[in-house]
Amino acid sequence: MLTLDFHPTGRHFLQIPGPSPVPDRILRAMSLPTIDHRGPEFALLGKRVLSGMQKIFQTKHPVVIYPASGTGAWEAALANTLSPGDPVLMYETGHFASLWNNMATRLGLKTEFLGLPGAEGWRRGVQADMVEKRLRADTQHQIKAVCVVHNETSTGVTSDIRAVRKAIDAAKHPALLMVDSISGLASAEYRHDDWGVDVCVSGSQKGLMLPPGISFNALSPKALEASKTSKLPKSFWAWDEMVDMNKTGYFPYTPNTNLLYGLAEACDMLLDPQQGGLEAVFARHRRWGEGVRAAVKAWSLEIQCVDPAVYSPVLTGVMTPEGIDADAVRKTIYERFDLSLGTGLGKVKGRMFRIGHLGDCNDLTLMAALSGCEMGLKLSGVKLAGSGVQAAMDYFAGHPAPQLLQKAA
Amino acid sequence: MLTLDFHPTGRHFLQIPGPSPVPDRILRAMSLPTIDHRGPEFALLGKRVLSGMQKIFQTKHPVVIYPASGTGAWEAALANTLSPGDPVLMYETGHFASLWNNMATRLGLKTEFLGLPGAEGWRRGVQADMVEKRLRADTQHQIKAVCVVHNETSTGVTSDIRAVRKAIDAAKHPALLMVDSISGLASAEYRHDDWGVDVCVSGSQKGLMLPPGISFNALSPKALEASKTSKLPKSFWAWDEMVDMNKTGYFPYTPNTNLLYGLAEACDMLLDPQQGGLEAVFARHRRWGEGVRAAVKAWSLEIQCVDPAVYSPVLTGVMTPEGIDADAVRKTIYERFDLSLGTGLGKVKGRMFRIGHLGDCNDLTLMAALSGCEMGLKLSGVKLAGSGVQAAMDYFAGHPAPQLLQKAA
Amino acid sequence: MLTLDFHPTGRHFLQIPGPSPVPDRILRAMSLPTIDHRGPEFALLGKRVLSGMQKIFQTKHPVVIYPASGTGAWEAALANTLSPGDPVLMYETGHFASLWNNMATRLGLKTEFLGLPGAEGWRRGVQADMVEKRLRADTQHQIKAVCVVHNETSTGVTSDIRAVRKAIDAAKHPALLMVDSISGLASAEYRHDDWGVDVCVSGSQKGLMLPPGISFNALSPKALEASKTSKLPKSFWAWDEMVDMNKTGYFPYTPNTNLLYGLAEACDMLLDPQQGGLEAVFARHRRWGEGVRAAVKAWSLEIQCVDPAVYSPVLTGVMTPEGIDADAVRKTIYERFDLSLGTGLGKVKGRMFRIGHLGDCNDLTLMAALSGCEMGLKLSGVKLAGSGVQAAMDYFAGHPAPQLLQKAA
Amino acid sequence: MLTLDFHPTGRHFLQIPGPSPVPDRILRAMSLPTIDHRGPEFALLGKRVLSGMQKIFQTKHPVVIYPASGTGAWEAALANTLSPGDPVLMYETGHFASLWNNMATRLGLKTEFLGLPGAEGWRRGVQADMVEKRLRADTQHQIKAVCVVHNETSTGVTSDIRAVRKAIDAAKHPALLMVDSISGLASAEYRHDDWGVDVCVSGSQKGLMLPPGISFNALSPKALEASKTSKLPKSFWAWDEMVDMNKTGYFPYTPNTNLLYGLAEACDMLLDPQQGGLEAVFARHRRWGEGVRAAVKAWSLEIQCVDPAVYSPVLTGVMTPEGIDADAVRKTIYERFDLSLGTGLGKVKGRMFRIGHLGDCNDLTLMAALSGCEMGLKLSGVKLAGSGVQAAMDYFAGHPAPQLLQKAA
Repeated sequence: MLTLDFHPTGRHFLQIPGPSPVPDRILRAMSLPTIDHRGPEFALLGKRVLSGMQKIFQTKHPVVIYPASGTGAWEAALANTLSPGDPVLMYETGHFASLWNNMATRLGLKTEFLGLPGAEGWRRGVQADMVEKRLRADTQHQIKAVCVVHNETSTGVTSDIRAVRKAIDAAKHPALLMVDSISGLASAEYRHDDWGVDVCVSGSQKGLMLPPGISFNALSPKALEASKTSKLPKSFWAWDEMVDMNKTGYFPYTPNTNLLYGLAEACDMLLDPQQGGLEAVFARHRRWGEGVRAAVKAWSLEIQCVDPAVYSPVLTGVMTPEGIDADAVRKTIYERFDLSLGTGLGKVKGRMFRIGHLGDCNDLTLMAALSGCEMGLKLSGVKLAGSGVQAAMDYFAGHPAPQLLQKAA
Repeated sequence: MLTLDFHPTGRHFLQIPGPSPVPDRILRAMSLPTIDHRGPEFALLGKRVLSGMQKIFQTKHPVVIYPASGTGAWEAALANTLSPGDPVLMYETGHFASLWNNMATRLGLKTEFLGLPGAEGWRRGVQADMVEKRLRADTQHQIKAVCVVHNETSTGVTSDIRAVRKAIDAAKHPALLMVDSISGLASAEYRHDDWGVDVCVSGSQKGLMLPPGISFNALSPKALEASKTSKLPKSFWAWDEMVDMNKTGYFPYTPNTNLLYGLAEACDMLLDPQQGGLEAVFARHRRWGEGVRAAVKAWSLEIQCVDPAVYSPVLTGVMTPEGIDADAVRKTIYERFDLSLGTGLGKVKGRMFRIGHLGDCNDLTLMAALSGCEMGLKLSGVKLAGSGVQAAMDYFAGHPAPQLLQKAA
Repeated sequence: MLTLDFHPTGRHFLQIPGPSPVPDRILRAMSLPTIDHRGPEFALLGKRVLSGMQKIFQTKHPVVIYPASGTGAWEAALANTLSPGDPVLMYETGHFASLWNNMATRLGLKTEFLGLPGAEGWRRGVQADMVEKRLRADTQHQIKAVCVVHNETSTGVTSDIRAVRKAIDAAKHPALLMVDSISGLASAEYRHDDWGVDVCVSGSQKGLMLPPGISFNALSPKALEASKTSKLPKSFWAWDEMVDMNKTGYFPYTPNTNLLYGLAEACDMLLDPQQGGLEAVFARHRRWGEGVRAAVKAWSLEIQCVDPAVYSPVLTGVMTPEGIDADAVRKTIYERFDLSLGTGLGKVKGRMFRIGHLGDCNDLTLMAALSGCEMGLKLSGVKLAGSGVQAAMDYFAGHPAPQLLQKAA
Repeated sequence: MLTLDFHPTGRHFLQIPGPSPVPDRILRAMSLPTIDHRGPEFALLGKRVLSGMQKIFQTKHPVVIYPASGTGAWEAALANTLSPGDPVLMYETGHFASLWNNMATRLGLKTEFLGLPGAEGWRRGVQADMVEKRLRADTQHQIKAVCVVHNETSTGVTSDIRAVRKAIDAAKHPALLMVDSISGLASAEYRHDDWGVDVCVSGSQKGLMLPPGISFNALSPKALEASKTSKLPKSFWAWDEMVDMNKTGYFPYTPNTNLLYGLAEACDMLLDPQQGGLEAVFARHRRWGEGVRAAVKAWSLEIQCVDPAVYSPVLTGVMTPEGIDADAVRKTIYERFDLSLGTGLGKVKGRMFRIGHLGDCNDLTLMAALSGCEMGLKLSGVKLAGSGVQAAMDYFAGHPAPQLLQKAA
């Protein structure tokens, strides 16, 4: 495998918004010997990850774990609850919202793709008032589901899901609320039961710090009810057998055992009460987001997200000035400084790059990434108003991580 | 993860017919850092595994790699080629053939489940003449596909796929030939193009020696043609975008990168010309099957497969005498000798157990497994006619592995 | 590193009497990132392994851990307690006793190498009465130390150390008792304080299940006292700074941190009260020794050790009949069955081979090894009286591991 | 081992001047199964590392590999060449030179510890003219060896070894030249044969990027000759058997096999002609040293080394202003930013800290480390003249790595 391990010296800095770097603890867990998934030991593992994921989704209802990457869990959410031709209201927050919309269309659903006009929709979160207005107009309640992206990975905007729930309730509309939190979960705050989400879709390679290959559906009783009458064909994705057999800790077909080892370890890491549990996780990503945005502001570059209320704690989209190809900047940074950044996707291709601050990260890793960005931007001819690196140092030095404060207190 | 690693001393012997033990070489490869699957390095990996899998399937046509376990690839084969209500001819060779049949029904296909009556069908391979007869009767050519299992993991029978192809051709029937070689591939001989298979389904956790989590569809031009008019809804499983984007070495959605590292390593191991390549792989599993069956015969226990022409090189099903619960035997063996064997599934539950000789194995590992079986059978009160361990030693000592012979020559 | 990992298929069986196979748990522990051995975290690790090793040696006195392989710890024992020209009584139990004697001579000590005449000494343990007689004759108490090997790795004889202690006491002689338990520790019973040993030498790559690279001196107050007047020059091996600094969990010079990670894990495994602790470890090796010897007896081959009272629980030496080159047998077994056995050393080169049953082992691993031996012996033209494999199965099936009995009770 | 792996999130930055971070490639290599060091495969490994180390020392003469950490190799150099009471000229460049001097004294040699007065000697390299003068005065040629440290790890000074050789030659003195390049080798330029060194001592945990546990003596024919008459007792460290048996690829006693796997990998990495080989390694460390010193100068802090001709490419010693406890600064940095820096040792304890830029490193890792230093210094109340981080970015962006230039050309 040497050809794949060619970085000449030191560690590659992978600061894309997922896959995020996999901690050694998780890689070691994944290297445990594969066991018989029908054997007596497996049930312990199954129960452990199923219950761990309920805690991470903050739900008391079933979580389904698919041995498949995140795109599959999108399909599962739709296929288990809807029937061919069902009208679905989707909201365009960016590239991944668009891809989910494409998938729904492809599966034979009638999607309506709501959103702000032009590129503006890609710089703001879901406009709950637009959702409410549209649902109020649907007096026949033909719309079966409202699908929104929690953390839009292509832009760095984290929509207010609670507001979307309120909008649906205000419109007294029975549509299901389906949420993609593939890149949000376990980095950005997410509360499944409290927020009244019916299906939440997530994946392993972001806040959960695993390689890609596992994905999730967190359910609500209403979603489970809807699955009984849904007519889209499904088998691999079907919730019924899965939820049923999961009660024993087993799975109806072969799970990806070694990634489950990693998932069990990730749950231990994220929920560890000694480290402050999930709330500490959310706080540290918020703080990193602040530090990175302080840098972007010092550079006087534009942040892709224009609404500070929905800045993402997961990643920051940085727009390059007119005439500067963001991908050329990324290439320079990659080749000179062994740092991977996220590319601009879809409508914003070449106009922005993305800095990930999700998953297993820390202050100095971000300082390294910001240094790479600052050097690369200058080498690419971008005039910077000031040093973002300096601003980030000021922020990080001036704002100790909450847990450190706690220890000091 | 210590609770999952509780074997008191020495290595557990995992001799179930999959998941098979993952070699350290592959575990090490899987622990390489996850890279950006949109970055410049990934294409090399993508091309390497795609071309490696073509060699392993022995095909010049596209192989699709899903970041999902094998059951998903069953669904993919059906969803890409068929339309709701399509009649499909399936053949009952055992438990997995039955599960595939159930899935097809669940997806809205009209399956006809051909097979020998009673338990007999679970002891023999696909009866090609029955297939031919049924297809000849379908003068309207309503049957769209013939689905058979190459190596039936629940019984230890490896059907003659070439004969099925001949049967379809003899009947001059246009149905697609779809084959499940999940447990056969890379242990039992399989020749996709030569045998005229349209879709072959396989998975990672058997002959490929990986953890579960990757699955495959090997295609034919005719299957690709059929996919253009197939009406079952699909998105995650859709071949079109996948085959198209794979040309560049990339994937339309997130692949499971770390398992692909392992797959690249597995291809290197299986195709290594210095080790004799695939032909040597097939030969060694045939030889191991012979050795294990010599043991079963010496015990005077019945082999589940009654037709020597289709004995499986992948696993051997061993029937326990009347009155002996095979699962109680397995439990004794597991607890006393730290050896996992496969359980009897479906119709043969409690009546047999299965010894895997697939994937990464060798003579002494099988001697260990056979010793555990012999001791456990005796401890369970089974009267054995003679020592299977002795018989296997005689076989292995008397029949050097072909490659060893070659070296000696 | 591929060139070093060339076994064509399955796991190599390493049944030499050390290095013993390293369990994956330990390999994983060893892959933790190297930390600053002067940093705040290290002291925890240092204290943990130092206290763990006291439990394993069964001593309340200091244990010194050298970042060096076992031969170094031999030198350390001598250099810390003796002065140039000191007379030392050593006892010839086999090859390793001879090597230690050579070392002592080389370091300028005057050694007297006691032992039974001819090859006989290599088939029995230390004759305590000979030691007593020699010490009684040394009325001037010129002999400064008695050096014996606890478990002679070259022969498979475990001497009675308590008897040697009694002999010294009976002779009312002040000589230090120095013991090499490199291959005995953590497989064969060893009680440092209880047996009154002054210096015990051990290493990592046997019962402790680590790769080679760490070695030990367990001390007594009398040995510490002797070290104050000893005149052999030493620095790296010097106990004084080591024992002093170890009180804080640190080491005077760079320790081999990653092997210490493995050592901490090994201590956890060996001392685990849920697995029965050290007594269970000793019991399982005794049982394995019984099983292996049952096989050798069934073959009617001679066991190197002729005194059943001192059969080794660590390894069994098997003599080949006249005219059969034991190394040719080993070569056949290695090439045909991927099994490594220990060679005959020194006086018994070519006349015997050694089967290791130390460290991380279990019943089926030994059944595999014995099968390989039985097949290889036959292929080499050795006439066997009966099946050793059969005898071992009878033994293992008939004698459940004590811990299993306990669970059942 | 979880208690040892407690960093809350992200990777710890280990920028001490050794142990240096171990690359994953090497950790993977070290996890290969331990093999029989007397078996047929081992010789390949032995020959590979022995020949690799000759290339790294740039010598055609034997290199001895000890399964022991670096302090042992110091002892080996002395014990193999000298006799009790031999006068030895040592030169005080810092803490490690002092420790080696202590060791020599302890071993019974008569050392003379040359050096500049006061703290000055710890800020400059070896003064070759002082050596020459002293040797000229030794008209009886009683001095048997001149011992100097190539890269003084405690200060960040890399002495001119070629000049010391010239001084000895100019004095027409037959003393052996012994060099400690424990922290220099494989980061700083070192040419054993060309520079006329007789014994070079080195270790694994610095430029070779391994965990501690292996150490080396590179020899000259003159050193080998001296070893024949040397009278210091030795056995473990003795060159004669080692050099003799190494010809076959084997070792006289148990080598630490798994670290040798890592060493073979390290040799591959360092000597890789596609990466530019050793010259590229030296060049990148020189460049990193320049970048780090640019930062220190921008802060207006003093560099421990006052002679730019002998700035170390391995580490940089940074002096803190009067009244600032360097260890308190280090503690703040460790606790707030998860970064380990080297402490001040001996005479400079509390007055300076050390930044490692040895081994497996890259620009952004150093930017991270410098950011941590800059934030920590400010938090500790140190007034900095300017931003060292900015200066380092300017340097790294302005001076591409030579190899990158080559690729561009």
